[in-house]
Amino acid sequence: MNWKKIGERLGYDGWRKIKVKTFELPNGREAEFDIISNYSFVTVAAFTQEGEAILIRQYRPGPERELLSFAEGAIDEGEAPETAAHRELLEETGYAAGELIFLKKKNSAYTDQTQYFFLAKNCCFLQPPRPDDSEFLSVEIVTVTSLKALLNDPEEDAFCNVDAAYLAMAYLGV
Amino acid sequence: MNWKKIGERLGYDGWRKIKVKTFELPNGREAEFDIISNYSFVTVAAFTQEGEAILIRQYRPGPERELLSFAEGAIDEGEAPETAAHRELLEETGYAAGELIFLKKKNSAYTDQTQYFFLAKNCCFLQPPRPDDSEFLSVEIVTVTSLKALLNDPEEDAFCNVDAAYLAMAYLGV
Repeated sequence: MNWKKIGERLGYDGWRKIKVKTFELPNGREAEFDIISNYSFVTVAAFTQEGEAILIRQYRPGPERELLSFAEGAIDEGEAPETAAHRELLEETGYAAGELIFLKKKNSAYTDQTQYFFLAKNCCFLQPPRPDDSEFLSVEIVTVTSLKALLNDPEEDAFCNVDAAYLAMAYLGV
Repeated sequence: MNWKKIGERLGYDGWRKIKVKTFELPNGREAEFDIISNYSFVTVAAFTQEGEAILIRQYRPGPERELLSFAEGAIDEGEAPETAAHRELLEETGYAAGELIFLKKKNSAYTDQTQYFFLAKNCCFLQPPRPDDSEFLSVEIVTVTSLKALLNDPEEDAFCNVDAAYLAMAYLGV
């Protein structure tokens, strides 16, 4: 099943970028694919010293409503994923990790971004969140029982980090 | 934390679309956001009558390598998510679901797509896969133990559906 890459051009160059990639497919046909091309990013499933999850509620311009997530953000040019995880956690929640554990990385079909999942254990509140000037967020501390309730409710569609939550809970054995 | 939507225009109109949405932010500043706008989609965590997971290996143009996933695909205009789940499972794997269970839906910050997660239990092999003419895939049947090994390996980055796998295993109690 050999795909042969023929070319690539920038199709859209906004904050988000789209690369249009052309391949010769295994059946000899040529096809173009729109690939979302942005920085790779980190997701930080963070828990307090009391073992409660540190979530963020934010209005989101995609679905035009508030969503609930863990701290998350782009890895800067040349930055290590671990450094980005510490930085995003502190900026978005004001918490510092007692221990940071790399859980997994994940690629997806139509982006060239890698997502890095971390568990931040024994987090300690240091300072008020300092999000950037287009972020307006509120931090919500929830019990593991409440986090599981979010995951177990089929109609609950505000929580974004189903994968990170399960990876973290599996690691913690809770 | 009130965001006021000011306008929306189509920024990119390929197979993938980008809507550029303008908002007045809670601090009075105006900002534009690039929102990925495509059909909502289904992910089908499918298991055979023997309780083994039905995965698909495909070359993917985003990371330009093979990735491993469950059956997944766009919901057609006017199609019910359940119908899309049955259709994608059959097209991509050749299996029919003995029982289809809706597990969860999920939104994300910078897309207007909703992802619907399903569990397909007791799947039965009906016919060879019939993917569309830009899909070239091989079906891989793996034990739950192997699926858990994929999830538990931090450096394993080929498996795309961490969330669907955990949701399905939690439902199945395995």
